Amino acid sequence: MNSIKLNMDKLYEAVAAKGHVCIGLDTAADYVPQKERQCASSDAEAVLAFNLAVIEATLDTAACYKVQIAYYEELGIAGLETYSKTLKYIRQKGALVIADIKRGDIADTASRYARAHFEGNFEADFVTLSPYLGMDAVEPWLKWAYQKGKGAFVLMRTSNPGMKDFQYLKTGPNRRMYNEVGDKLTELTESGRGIYRYGPFGAVVGADPKTDEEKQEAIAIRNQYPGLFFLIPGYGAQGGAAKDAVLLLREGNGGVVNASRSIIKAWSSDTSETAGAGKLAEADNVFAATKARDAAIKMRDAIKNELKRNA
Amino acid sequence: MNSIKLNMDKLYEAVAAKGHVCIGLDTAADYVPQKERQCASSDAEAVLAFNLAVIEATLDTAACYKVQIAYYEELGIAGLETYSKTLKYIRQKGALVIADIKRGDIADTASRYARAHFEGNFEADFVTLSPYLGMDAVEPWLKWAYQKGKGAFVLMRTSNPGMKDFQYLKTGPNRRMYNEVGDKLTELTESGRGIYRYGPFGAVVGADPKTDEEKQEAIAIRNQYPGLFFLIPGYGAQGGAAKDAVLLLREGNGGVVNASRSIIKAWSSDTSETAGAGKLAEADNVFAATKARDAAIKMRDAIKNELKRNA
Repeated sequence: MNSIKLNMDKLYEAVAAKGHVCIGLDTAADYVPQKERQCASSDAEAVLAFNLAVIEATLDTAACYKVQIAYYEELGIAGLETYSKTLKYIRQKGALVIADIKRGDIADTASRYARAHFEGNFEADFVTLSPYLGMDAVEPWLKWAYQKGKGAFVLMRTSNPGMKDFQYLKTGPNRRMYNEVGDKLTELTESGRGIYRYGPFGAVVGADPKTDEEKQEAIAIRNQYPGLFFLIPGYGAQGGAAKDAVLLLREGNGGVVNASRSIIKAWSSDTSETAGAGKLAEADNVFAATKARDAAIKMRDAIKNELKRNA
Repeated sequence: MNSIKLNMDKLYEAVAAKGHVCIGLDTAADYVPQKERQCASSDAEAVLAFNLAVIEATLDTAACYKVQIAYYEELGIAGLETYSKTLKYIRQKGALVIADIKRGDIADTASRYARAHFEGNFEADFVTLSPYLGMDAVEPWLKWAYQKGKGAFVLMRTSNPGMKDFQYLKTGPNRRMYNEVGDKLTELTESGRGIYRYGPFGAVVGADPKTDEEKQEAIAIRNQYPGLFFLIPGYGAQGGAAKDAVLLLREGNGGVVNASRSIIKAWSSDTSETAGAGKLAEADNVFAATKARDAAIKMRDAIKNELKRNA
């Protein structure tokens, strides 16, 4: 049993209080309103100001934030300063942040990655991990779960087309590669579950079933892994909808649903109340943040309504 | 056919000219001689000065360098500045560098990672990639191969204990998960092979067979994937030896063998000519670099002799 509260417990409580939306801050510089980008001293500064505005406007609406580090690594050292400041801001505000880093390395190297992302400049509450090397790429991170409550989401069954290349291969009767990951992850975290019976480490499971078979598969995954909290990508711009996402929830909780572009770019596709590009050229971060908030609320309510419909 | 020379071609030529050693700059601050570390203004500075000394001393001995980014991320922003400067220094000297980042993400995110590590502050000649998400985590990087000659090594069959968790699972008769990766990677790079008939992207294949069966497996892997250049970790501190590594070479080339700690920490374990810790406390970067050079030469020659013995 844990003597400290797990971040996974805090995430469960955030979902209960604020709904299931995880806002993905996959912020490219060209997602920032033109006017703001021009005023900023660099793209990294522009992204930071945009992020802070979106965070500020959505604190009561988002269960958590997910920051995709690739967008910041792309901008080099300056980008990683923005990444660091974005994480710090979220945590200062008392909100939870998932560092979407998909790291995966073994032994001592894994511990160094863990120190990099669970301490210091890049400290996050959760990380995402890739399991290809084996559980010795996951296990070293657990120390931080038991000492500091940190959490992780391990890639299990995603919804990109390439998912079928490896994750989906049969490894036995009624077993696919991703089941091996789910089973091993359950085993690894079984003895350290938190208040709400979820382990400190959960799984990334995509929500975009295109056939009835895939729908049944999503339901089966949720049933097979009751101890795993799910990070569910694929909502919105990536094609998933509320009715898909709820298949991966459990008793109204047990997962957060990530949307990135459909929230942070909501301002640019919102032409309904504008006179077109003219008005949008006038858009600033406050406008963008308001639209992000509206999109997050709409998404939160769509999931809640879908849960009610299924209840 | 490529109109530009691939980095994989340059690596082949470096191996032919200088041998098979890839020096792993997995440099922790406590690998730096105490005296130098104390003089440095920060751990990140200490690591940088150490790296530059080792690189300078080994340019004619190493086919390439591999920089494990976890060790630099651990030191935060300052660490990534050291990482950036280490890469720049190697490339300025005309040597080749593999960014050991094991990134793996899809679609637009993959392209952003590619821009992060094939351009700008963190530009490297090669990267390492993780295939768990599928080939759509690998394919977007190829654009840089055909436009700029960049290369990658995709995790295929490693030699850590956890390798058996997923990579080693049977996916068919005489097929394991790693074969799926090797086959897909061959297919993806078939049409773009370079001068020496290796594709722009190769594979990470470990060299530490513990049984005769594993030895046969290494030989089989080498035969099955003639178009894949191998990055072979596991030499030295990780247990592998020259006789294991050569199993994964092909016609005297076709792979580089990485050693990290057995080279960059050679100075600290070298007590033979010293009066023990007293003398070692006096060690500086020049001493460490000389020992690194000696260790690299020893390793290079051990592999060459093993190849001769097998010829």
